[in-house]
Amino acid sequence: MKKVDVIIIGGGPAGYTTALTAKNLYPDKSIVLIRREEKVLIPCAIPYLFNTIKTIDQNILPDDPLIKLGVDIVVDEVTSINLSNRIVKTSKGLEFEFNRLVLATGSKPVELKVDGSNLKNVFYIIKDYNYLKNVIETVKEANDIVIIGGGFVGMEIADDLCKTGKNITIVEMLPHCLLRNFDEEFAILAEEELKSRGVNIKTNCLVTKIEGNSKVEKVKLSTGEDIKADVVIVSIGVRPNVDLAKSLGLKIGSLGGIEVDYCRRTSNPLIYAVGDCVERPDFITGKSTFVQLASVATSDARIAAMNLFTLSAPCKYVGSIGAFSTKIGDLTFACVGFTESRAKIEGVDYVVGYSEAIDKHPTILPGGKKIKLKIIVSKPTQEIIGAEIVGGSTVAEYVNTLGMLILNRMKLTDILSLQVATHPWLTPSPVAYTLHTAALDALKKLKK
Amino acid sequence: MKKVDVIIIGGGPAGYTTALTAKNLYPDKSIVLIRREEKVLIPCAIPYLFNTIKTIDQNILPDDPLIKLGVDIVVDEVTSINLSNRIVKTSKGLEFEFNRLVLATGSKPVELKVDGSNLKNVFYIIKDYNYLKNVIETVKEANDIVIIGGGFVGMEIADDLCKTGKNITIVEMLPHCLLRNFDEEFAILAEEELKSRGVNIKTNCLVTKIEGNSKVEKVKLSTGEDIKADVVIVSIGVRPNVDLAKSLGLKIGSLGGIEVDYCRRTSNPLIYAVGDCVERPDFITGKSTFVQLASVATSDARIAAMNLFTLSAPCKYVGSIGAFSTKIGDLTFACVGFTESRAKIEGVDYVVGYSEAIDKHPTILPGGKKIKLKIIVSKPTQEIIGAEIVGGSTVAEYVNTLGMLILNRMKLTDILSLQVATHPWLTPSPVAYTLHTAALDALKKLKK
Repeated sequence: MKKVDVIIIGGGPAGYTTALTAKNLYPDKSIVLIRREEKVLIPCAIPYLFNTIKTIDQNILPDDPLIKLGVDIVVDEVTSINLSNRIVKTSKGLEFEFNRLVLATGSKPVELKVDGSNLKNVFYIIKDYNYLKNVIETVKEANDIVIIGGGFVGMEIADDLCKTGKNITIVEMLPHCLLRNFDEEFAILAEEELKSRGVNIKTNCLVTKIEGNSKVEKVKLSTGEDIKADVVIVSIGVRPNVDLAKSLGLKIGSLGGIEVDYCRRTSNPLIYAVGDCVERPDFITGKSTFVQLASVATSDARIAAMNLFTLSAPCKYVGSIGAFSTKIGDLTFACVGFTESRAKIEGVDYVVGYSEAIDKHPTILPGGKKIKLKIIVSKPTQEIIGAEIVGGSTVAEYVNTLGMLILNRMKLTDILSLQVATHPWLTPSPVAYTLHTAALDALKKLKK
Repeated sequence: MKKVDVIIIGGGPAGYTTALTAKNLYPDKSIVLIRREEKVLIPCAIPYLFNTIKTIDQNILPDDPLIKLGVDIVVDEVTSINLSNRIVKTSKGLEFEFNRLVLATGSKPVELKVDGSNLKNVFYIIKDYNYLKNVIETVKEANDIVIIGGGFVGMEIADDLCKTGKNITIVEMLPHCLLRNFDEEFAILAEEELKSRGVNIKTNCLVTKIEGNSKVEKVKLSTGEDIKADVVIVSIGVRPNVDLAKSLGLKIGSLGGIEVDYCRRTSNPLIYAVGDCVERPDFITGKSTFVQLASVATSDARIAAMNLFTLSAPCKYVGSIGAFSTKIGDLTFACVGFTESRAKIEGVDYVVGYSEAIDKHPTILPGGKKIKLKIIVSKPTQEIIGAEIVGGSTVAEYVNTLGMLILNRMKLTDILSLQVATHPWLTPSPVAYTLHTAALDALKKLKK
């Protein structure tokens, strides 16, 4: 039996970041990270294993930084947790007595429930080295690939795979892909970018059946269409993995994720939970929500780490803003906070500000890309509550400035006062910077 | 005599942005912009006229957006302003009665005071179409070019010119170039980048004399060295152009710029001043300071425009943070707030946080660039008061997130809680995002 200060269960980005942050802040505390996987995949880059990244071994979250700090990594499975004497046992017979426990048990793919979904070569994006290795090898041999689900994971896989010349089809049940993150006008741009690279996109369309003999051969759609398929990749969302939390009697939220407080403590104050397995209040409404993004998961992790032994009361957790970016073809798309359609659903009294500009000035400088920005502003408060942006690679950091505006509840007039660095080669002109122009557009509409 | 609501004097980015913002916010007000120049140069891109931008006419601030809005552009010189009856007269005999006056009279280059500085082919960066056209044409014919002053303008000119194969030398009196904006370790990186492209850099070095017969032939340095020169470009700073303000009896600040309040009103409440001609409090210390950057000038302009007719009291002007970026070779450098050396001079009790990461994850993805970030944190408040960053092109927008942290007086623990969007192709990993890593580094040092 080994006495340790902290046991973290789960080695994905949330568990990893908890260990990294906690050991940096409390070098004298002993921290054990228990995970099932020998090698942990970098989850965000899984879509690029299909073509760009040549071997799966190049996409492994490095253990070195944790080991150097003195985190004890145990590759093993937790078999029992006794809360009264705080003892964790593992399948290899290890026993630990802990002071704090952190659950970072992640998520599982939502399963497709149609006839034939159990056929050979119907795959999910499961963050498991051996499973994914097989998926990738099978895809390499395949020619006709159907991706079910046009969220960002499906779109990114298609983006990477379309460079191989294979025949790729995305099937999405909503009117457009990416609608969880973007409004229609941005979603259409992303679809057009993929279509121009040869990807087939079927929207407004359900999969009714998967057919094949020894393995998948075709996918039948609600439109009556059949699509030839050597491989099907199902990517229709994830749900929190709360089996362990349930077995510990922890409170599960209304959406099915682990309930945590601002400091990331579960209903048992010695147990924390972070990442995809928890549900949290939305920044705008305070309603419980699932956001399974690295931006939120690693924020959880750092908050939990800071609050592991003494609370940083009042803890400044402020709710999820869901900051996110993706790259489709040559375009970078990013969003944070509410989309316009979400604002409508939630009944917000809002106004929209738009702007467009080339990301160089003068615009004749070589390599310029158009940035298109949309901001959603609450009318009663004049605060920016959401933003969507598309452009070149700089947009990926731009969105974090937009997130900062939302988190700090900045108003349109604050945005117009903002000092923003610009440069001829790198940004729109300071006299027409997209953020100011969009704020001005919204302010004009508010004054009407 | 024409009655108008607003007269803006000066057509650079500050005057331009004042007109653009004011006419958007108050479409019913008549706005006249009076400027000397037929064509206004985009000032930030002047360094790229020496090679990249093929003709000076491609670097003109477009009048169209102002004209479309209904701003009246008058190319003329103001000859007299009578404050008692509010009448502006011009050299072409025009007369306007105004309600509000905005001075955007900009800056003039600081002159080099050594023997020979009046020789032919010794030039300044004067934002005048015909003057600069001649400079550029003369430089095109020249082979040996000496740039006096290693600030960002001098560095950018060298960066653009070194691609032509000409012999370029920068002379800087301080121990390194760019020290007004960066600490030594960043300045050295910028110098190395230019040196690797063939630029000669002489630091710790004064120009004692310029020699030549009919025109410049050589530059003599305090080290005793002579440098051959067909052309000399002097770029040793700018000073506010306050001639008009002085003639109007407006209060001039201790540094020689026009004094303005938070709303950008001068000592005469009907007269506003914006851009390079004013001095303003620094965000960190509140001390009066000159920051002649587009980020600050256009912020002035938008603040003035919002407050032209009714004050947005309390006006949320918060002081200059001097957000700024530049591109030297393949590297983007950016900074905001205090450098470490400035913090030392001001007597701040500070700690520094460092981080480095590749801007892609996994780092084997093609095209990755190293980002190096340094943050300066006030010990007593734990607030970030400055940041310097170098990396690929995304750094140019990243610095605006850093500016937002400073403006919102965010603490290290707030930064660790931050949700930051990341993407394999576009940013460091979410488990090692440079901002979080630097904050963690600073927090560890604070705890010691």
